[in-house]
Amino acid sequence: MSTLNELGEKEAVRAVLSRLLPRGVVGMGDDAACVRIGSRYLVVSTDLISKRTHIPDRMSAYQVGWMAAAVNLSDIAAMGAEPIGVVMAMGLPRSTGSDTLMDMVEGVTDCCESVSAKYLGGDTKECPELTIAGTSLGLVRTDGLLKRSGAKEGDLLAVTGTVGLAGAAFHEMDLDDHDRRARKAALEPRPRIREGVLLSASGCVTSCMDTSDGLAMSVHELSNASGVGFEVMRDKVPVDPAAVAICEKYGKLVDDAALYSGGDYQLLFTIDPSGLGRLMSMMKDDVSVIGRATLERDVVLIGEGGKGPLPYKGYEHFKG
Amino acid sequence: MSTLNELGEKEAVRAVLSRLLPRGVVGMGDDAACVRIGSRYLVVSTDLISKRTHIPDRMSAYQVGWMAAAVNLSDIAAMGAEPIGVVMAMGLPRSTGSDTLMDMVEGVTDCCESVSAKYLGGDTKECPELTIAGTSLGLVRTDGLLKRSGAKEGDLLAVTGTVGLAGAAFHEMDLDDHDRRARKAALEPRPRIREGVLLSASGCVTSCMDTSDGLAMSVHELSNASGVGFEVMRDKVPVDPAAVAICEKYGKLVDDAALYSGGDYQLLFTIDPSGLGRLMSMMKDDVSVIGRATLERDVVLIGEGGKGPLPYKGYEHFKG
Repeated sequence: MSTLNELGEKEAVRAVLSRLLPRGVVGMGDDAACVRIGSRYLVVSTDLISKRTHIPDRMSAYQVGWMAAAVNLSDIAAMGAEPIGVVMAMGLPRSTGSDTLMDMVEGVTDCCESVSAKYLGGDTKECPELTIAGTSLGLVRTDGLLKRSGAKEGDLLAVTGTVGLAGAAFHEMDLDDHDRRARKAALEPRPRIREGVLLSASGCVTSCMDTSDGLAMSVHELSNASGVGFEVMRDKVPVDPAAVAICEKYGKLVDDAALYSGGDYQLLFTIDPSGLGRLMSMMKDDVSVIGRATLERDVVLIGEGGKGPLPYKGYEHFKG
Repeated sequence: MSTLNELGEKEAVRAVLSRLLPRGVVGMGDDAACVRIGSRYLVVSTDLISKRTHIPDRMSAYQVGWMAAAVNLSDIAAMGAEPIGVVMAMGLPRSTGSDTLMDMVEGVTDCCESVSAKYLGGDTKECPELTIAGTSLGLVRTDGLLKRSGAKEGDLLAVTGTVGLAGAAFHEMDLDDHDRRARKAALEPRPRIREGVLLSASGCVTSCMDTSDGLAMSVHELSNASGVGFEVMRDKVPVDPAAVAICEKYGKLVDDAALYSGGDYQLLFTIDPSGLGRLMSMMKDDVSVIGRATLERDVVLIGEGGKGPLPYKGYEHFKG
């Protein structure tokens, strides 16, 4: 009998999915589950974070609340849905101060309001270690649902915004330095709801997910779900200049922050090439094409040193 | 600054609610939150259980999964909604075996299928202690929503099924005895979905909640939410005969199991008296009228020894 330690988190999730898949739920293996209600899908995502394994010591209670909401709203964004709201089940140690609780609630509320979602309430229980399970809800027209599967050969691979800042910031925080924008990127990430809704409306996005586990792992996930390979052009990856500066200052590899660190919560997606112009104008160019889908299933990085496999590595729990 | 230990779980929830209430969410303070979608409410409930504080050692992994689904589906029942499904965020220790995970998944699935709900998926993460946060979703016509508020003077107080078996079983389990039906009542409680849907359809139910914290505390909660008092007639409370037998066998007070123990997950509700006949025929008499709502705000128990306040006690975390 294998344990989760041997399996890793992603394998554990896969094992659960394999038991559930025959039951015919749409959205299994995607960032969120979907249930049809009339002409729309109700999109539901849940995510649990706990103190020792997912919450850095330097995070304030406000940021813990923000993050718990943000990770779930990011999953709604990845499906192209408009958010309804979130519910939060909080497990709190007996010694938790009521100020701490209120700060967390404020963080949840502010994150929700930043994307016009409602904090719908939840549950508060005693728990030996701080644990927050958030669930987010959204709605999307059935023909606008974005899934991880759907990319086809020749589609362009693209990402919203910039990458690397969250990864660089986590490193910097270990060194007790302070770049306010970097810290905010890492600890109060913005769910890309607006972007997801536009991608959905564009009609030319063939697959989508968020980059919560880092760019490299996310490209592999799209590859697996869609049954295509990808060529990623390293020089097209929109690395945040501040991330480069932080990495250079501390002698850290830029690729570790840009490709192999989670936390940016951008949207990674594929586009039918015929829609690129329209999409770029809708997104006001806040999108970078970084590669293309290939018939061969390999995921390849093309950089200065030539062409080679893009490692499947990033942020993963259990195996940490 | 007060801590949760001093506040107790219910106060902590109240503190969160007081911050959220001005934001205009329907269903705050009820068993579940509600969001209007067209002519219906989407009803959402979330609940977190963790190993040390909520999961008895004798519960199997299957029963942990069942319970995590049942507590949330019971909240859907209390609002009169038809369930859509549940999502589960599971925090698991590294040493968790994959068989244990699969057994939990099976428990969740079976509980969902018992009430025609879907297990929609979820999240699996590392956590120092086993923690499961379930979220349930349901739909109900806007005019059929059952709330805790709404009881008015003269309404009849009633409860589905019987009470006390779960409370008695928890006691018996400490003594390592085995009454299969009692154990199942305690560890695999049945969400009263069918009953909730009938109560909603009857048109004469004025308030409703589940008895997860025990009958006495639930009567007080209806009283607080509705702004009425209640007279409860002790001899009308439908105590399960098996619960009486277990209590007598072990010298335990029957009232402790019947009134002051949680776990039965029945529905406690009030009825406009004019609808009683119709409701009884719809519910095939699986309902007991146990008292009535009064103008005076006191919650009173009328028993053999006369009339006195019904103590506000039951199952509560934090203050355990």
